[in-house]
Amino acid sequence: MQYFNSDYLEGAHPKILQRLLESNMEKTEGYGMDKYCESAREKIRGACKCPEAEIYFLSGGTQTNATVIDSLLYSFEGVIAVKSGHINTHEAGAIETSGHKVLEVEGQNGKLSADTVEVYLKNFEEDGNHEHMVAPGMVYISQPTEYGTLYTKEELKEISAVCRNHKVFLYLDGARLGYGLMARDSDVTLEEIATYCDVFYIGGTKVGALLGEAVVITPTVRIKNFFTIIKQHGALLAKGRLLGIQFDTLFTDNLYFEISKHAIDMAMKLKEGFEQKGYQFYIDSSTNQQFIVLQNEKMEALSKKVAFSFWEKLDDEYTIVRFATSWATKEEDVEALIQLL
Amino acid sequence: MQYFNSDYLEGAHPKILQRLLESNMEKTEGYGMDKYCESAREKIRGACKCPEAEIYFLSGGTQTNATVIDSLLYSFEGVIAVKSGHINTHEAGAIETSGHKVLEVEGQNGKLSADTVEVYLKNFEEDGNHEHMVAPGMVYISQPTEYGTLYTKEELKEISAVCRNHKVFLYLDGARLGYGLMARDSDVTLEEIATYCDVFYIGGTKVGALLGEAVVITPTVRIKNFFTIIKQHGALLAKGRLLGIQFDTLFTDNLYFEISKHAIDMAMKLKEGFEQKGYQFYIDSSTNQQFIVLQNEKMEALSKKVAFSFWEKLDDEYTIVRFATSWATKEEDVEALIQLL
Amino acid sequence: MQYFNSDYLEGAHPKILQRLLESNMEKTEGYGMDKYCESAREKIRGACKCPEAEIYFLSGGTQTNATVIDSLLYSFEGVIAVKSGHINTHEAGAIETSGHKVLEVEGQNGKLSADTVEVYLKNFEEDGNHEHMVAPGMVYISQPTEYGTLYTKEELKEISAVCRNHKVFLYLDGARLGYGLMARDSDVTLEEIATYCDVFYIGGTKVGALLGEAVVITPTVRIKNFFTIIKQHGALLAKGRLLGIQFDTLFTDNLYFEISKHAIDMAMKLKEGFEQKGYQFYIDSSTNQQFIVLQNEKMEALSKKVAFSFWEKLDDEYTIVRFATSWATKEEDVEALIQLL
Amino acid sequence: MQYFNSDYLEGAHPKILQRLLESNMEKTEGYGMDKYCESAREKIRGACKCPEAEIYFLSGGTQTNATVIDSLLYSFEGVIAVKSGHINTHEAGAIETSGHKVLEVEGQNGKLSADTVEVYLKNFEEDGNHEHMVAPGMVYISQPTEYGTLYTKEELKEISAVCRNHKVFLYLDGARLGYGLMARDSDVTLEEIATYCDVFYIGGTKVGALLGEAVVITPTVRIKNFFTIIKQHGALLAKGRLLGIQFDTLFTDNLYFEISKHAIDMAMKLKEGFEQKGYQFYIDSSTNQQFIVLQNEKMEALSKKVAFSFWEKLDDEYTIVRFATSWATKEEDVEALIQLL
Repeated sequence: MQYFNSDYLEGAHPKILQRLLESNMEKTEGYGMDKYCESAREKIRGACKCPEAEIYFLSGGTQTNATVIDSLLYSFEGVIAVKSGHINTHEAGAIETSGHKVLEVEGQNGKLSADTVEVYLKNFEEDGNHEHMVAPGMVYISQPTEYGTLYTKEELKEISAVCRNHKVFLYLDGARLGYGLMARDSDVTLEEIATYCDVFYIGGTKVGALLGEAVVITPTVRIKNFFTIIKQHGALLAKGRLLGIQFDTLFTDNLYFEISKHAIDMAMKLKEGFEQKGYQFYIDSSTNQQFIVLQNEKMEALSKKVAFSFWEKLDDEYTIVRFATSWATKEEDVEALIQLL
Repeated sequence: MQYFNSDYLEGAHPKILQRLLESNMEKTEGYGMDKYCESAREKIRGACKCPEAEIYFLSGGTQTNATVIDSLLYSFEGVIAVKSGHINTHEAGAIETSGHKVLEVEGQNGKLSADTVEVYLKNFEEDGNHEHMVAPGMVYISQPTEYGTLYTKEELKEISAVCRNHKVFLYLDGARLGYGLMARDSDVTLEEIATYCDVFYIGGTKVGALLGEAVVITPTVRIKNFFTIIKQHGALLAKGRLLGIQFDTLFTDNLYFEISKHAIDMAMKLKEGFEQKGYQFYIDSSTNQQFIVLQNEKMEALSKKVAFSFWEKLDDEYTIVRFATSWATKEEDVEALIQLL
Repeated sequence: MQYFNSDYLEGAHPKILQRLLESNMEKTEGYGMDKYCESAREKIRGACKCPEAEIYFLSGGTQTNATVIDSLLYSFEGVIAVKSGHINTHEAGAIETSGHKVLEVEGQNGKLSADTVEVYLKNFEEDGNHEHMVAPGMVYISQPTEYGTLYTKEELKEISAVCRNHKVFLYLDGARLGYGLMARDSDVTLEEIATYCDVFYIGGTKVGALLGEAVVITPTVRIKNFFTIIKQHGALLAKGRLLGIQFDTLFTDNLYFEISKHAIDMAMKLKEGFEQKGYQFYIDSSTNQQFIVLQNEKMEALSKKVAFSFWEKLDDEYTIVRFATSWATKEEDVEALIQLL
Repeated sequence: MQYFNSDYLEGAHPKILQRLLESNMEKTEGYGMDKYCESAREKIRGACKCPEAEIYFLSGGTQTNATVIDSLLYSFEGVIAVKSGHINTHEAGAIETSGHKVLEVEGQNGKLSADTVEVYLKNFEEDGNHEHMVAPGMVYISQPTEYGTLYTKEELKEISAVCRNHKVFLYLDGARLGYGLMARDSDVTLEEIATYCDVFYIGGTKVGALLGEAVVITPTVRIKNFFTIIKQHGALLAKGRLLGIQFDTLFTDNLYFEISKHAIDMAMKLKEGFEQKGYQFYIDSSTNQQFIVLQNEKMEALSKKVAFSFWEKLDDEYTIVRFATSWATKEEDVEALIQLL
């Protein structure tokens, strides 16, 4: 049996476990005040070329989205996202739990366009009833998107310009940011993300860590009492160093980028395999998630030999499924999978 | 200047003011425990042919929607509504403020179809990730809809069947229910609404009252501590009789239905006028709201002689505007307006 | 049977009903944009000698408290109130529903002291764990308090100074403000309240109106999007003029103050009656609520001839009950009650 | 420098890290569906002698409290807790964020008495205004309490009886439960806790784990959609096995109890040291937290040689401080500390 059902199948990169072992009996301050968190912050600021950024470490994606969005919005504001956005579909209403509406707009291939944002914000401002409506206070995007697609530098820049022009925040969900940055056709750097976004997070859970997401608050925004808001959302770890040590390791010697590149290499090898075997892609993804359309019978047969994810039904006969690689995917397993296809 | 911009331009039906005057110095219990509220409840139960219904009086539509929806849903549940639904657009996020997501689906002419609900609920149940998603706990519709359109008896019955089959509640927003019931092509009675819906409200604010909506909880559902939930939502009036007296008057001698019929007569006269003058309708409405497409210049010229509502931009050259009649609209004003057109 | 159980037993002052009748068929803008609301605002600004104040009209006390408090606080902040404060006891958790903690402190005779506030705020600021705690963002008081007692000018000034020194808002709940202002021993004017508080409301529901509270936002604070927050809380009336007409009437020719004075005169007559008959007061109140301690048997006997409110059990043998007068209380009824005692 | 400032200074028990290392490259299902979580659940059910219990793993105490409380209460209900309870003081309002009021009552030495609960519930039920009040839906206690004190078996039994009699849930916060169970004077077992409480959690973060709390839902209660509620609260870890492996290790060969006993041994040695040196205890604690009253000057001098926690100011001259031991405390460090005193 081969497993390609997600990018969180294994534990952590061995170097991370090594660091946890080495530091285990050291006594440190709690709540992210320790030297490991501080060191990780410095390295992330360096990687983003953003020395003024504030960095906080949280545990998972939904938690991070809910906490950041709540911290940036007034109580009467909502957040614009594409219909397929993670906050709009797979977070069990965590954003609404904090009282904020997800303002759903149409996307293309999982992506939001600057035009869509511009039209939404302009229509809102010109609507005679806008005081009766949820005010859009921020725009949510993810890199890569739920469909593994990527924003180009130009697209990011345009969305950012629209946001700044209309005075709404731009927040980027980077649950799989490493895989986005290292995609072969990506022209976006961490530095540019820090330039165009107001807040974003660098995903650890799906990119080599046991758990953990690093929130980067750029100098365009100052969040009042973010530490307290983290606590209020149940997102503050007593042993905060668990996150600090992991990010410190990931941002030492380019580890985060190298293991992300490995996942991309494995995904591209797999993509080629699918192409050669004549499989139909649902969407063209250059990142670690590949979406394939399978006839239901074929799907069932294949599912006996390899684990993949149900994505959604295309119609009564066909289903879209997802194969994911990660930092931990072995080349021999990809080869074995291709043999199976 | 003629005023057709809304159906809440005037105060209350004169009979209501008369009753308020007559009863003014009587001393009664507060919080809706008085004899007027009790009498109004009995009359509404009679009109709905639903002797087991529980009736509560609240002040306005958004308040009623937020309170009822919050009372019927578990904290992790959301409410299905069409994109143009009032709760999804013009309630400033009141539903999300209570932590509930509005699960937006496509409508047609402002209406939700049983098919759309069935597909949504089936897809949800069959989705491998549904435990990560907001569970749909109820369906929200309004009669008439935001576009003045109506559900037929058959459509209501079908939606109701789907809801009951999937064990989600059906809630009907009747802010303008009188105008829906008295529309010439309506085949739905209050009794049927009480049969097909679990909870609904009979709108007073837009149908002859100073303020007030009567929530009807049918015997298919029992809401725990609804009185406390009303208080918690800031929706409990100390002098609850203000609402009781109004609904008692409206449900005496068919007043609610008669004044609603008058508004429909006025609307149909106006509609004919528009037709004769060759105006373009955005949608075919048989209720008290008429939606007209106007060229922007024409709109501006007309707006100097008559007040109407901006609805939405159709494109850069044309705008959709709304003309509304009400229980208070005078025939001479409709005629004057038609002259102006 | 005599009724002294509350100050909202009757409808509205006759002059208000008269104005409602006169204006009934006028067509006005909705949502508080009408000329009556505007006129009422001007008169209230004048009465407060605060020409820069922003005035909004809401329907009831709990709704007003929940809306104002939510609008003034960050999501992570709470509001300091005495244990017996209305928001802490009798609002069914409306404040917590918006996510804000009521930070309960000890009061004396229903009153909060400047010292208590100072100690609370100082302790909070000096607490090594304060980032793990709810940050106090405002202080809530009411005039009169739940026990009918009053803050003196000096006390208000001191609390205000502490609040401003620590940069937290001071909000005053004036559900019965008229009765507080006209109490014979009161040395506080509306102007001073507007000077010492950041936001307060002038109660209408219990002082002559059918319903309605006038929120006064002084120039020390500007609330972003308060109109939208009102809508979000379900507190926006379509026919906002219903509130405007009432407050316009109440603030014409000193009506609000005169009818308040009448209630006080009645209460003082009643108080004397209790004193002469040897009844025991629970607390010394100079406002329209009088709290009497009754032996349970006596209470039961008396309750057959006069309606009063259960307040709380003193012990197994004695109960505290409340007698309330209002703008509508007749002198002959007070006399009849005294006869009965 | 000696460190006794908290019980989360180090990483995890070495056996846990060993298990994480061994299992690191295994591929497992996410979200707590893996074999390690399942094994841990079985062992915990065994330790609680409660084969029907449902077990879920969350990350931290505040998160667990907020999630469990929200899942057990109706939207209009609140939770009774003593003033010093963790949810009432040090969780940044996480409970109120979900809309639930913490109903504060007086405790003694951090403990809630059955009498206090009985009086509160009885008063609530008999209060004529209880429909205007937050309904108490559960009782929150912790073992040990914030002051390190313990409920006896008899006390637990009595509180449980009151709760069941009034149909409110009993929830026990066991952030330091191991230290409570192994205290020399404790007569309470895990089995009894599972018998008397409806839901409780077994703390991992402070008792040997990197992070993690095990929620035990006993058969007296079934929570609808708890998995989704966990997700909604941002509390669902993708790599759920991280928690499963840790609890599986802690509940193998009595490790949880053994390391807890060690912490108690160290605390008792320290307590004796304090006694012998004539230090003044703020409270008599038999668990791993010792509360000492220090003169401010002495405190400052001592703080240069040993790290302890500020607890609260006793008065202007004296301060209460806390010394904590844990599973990781070394005997030699306790001895060194005693030398220093």
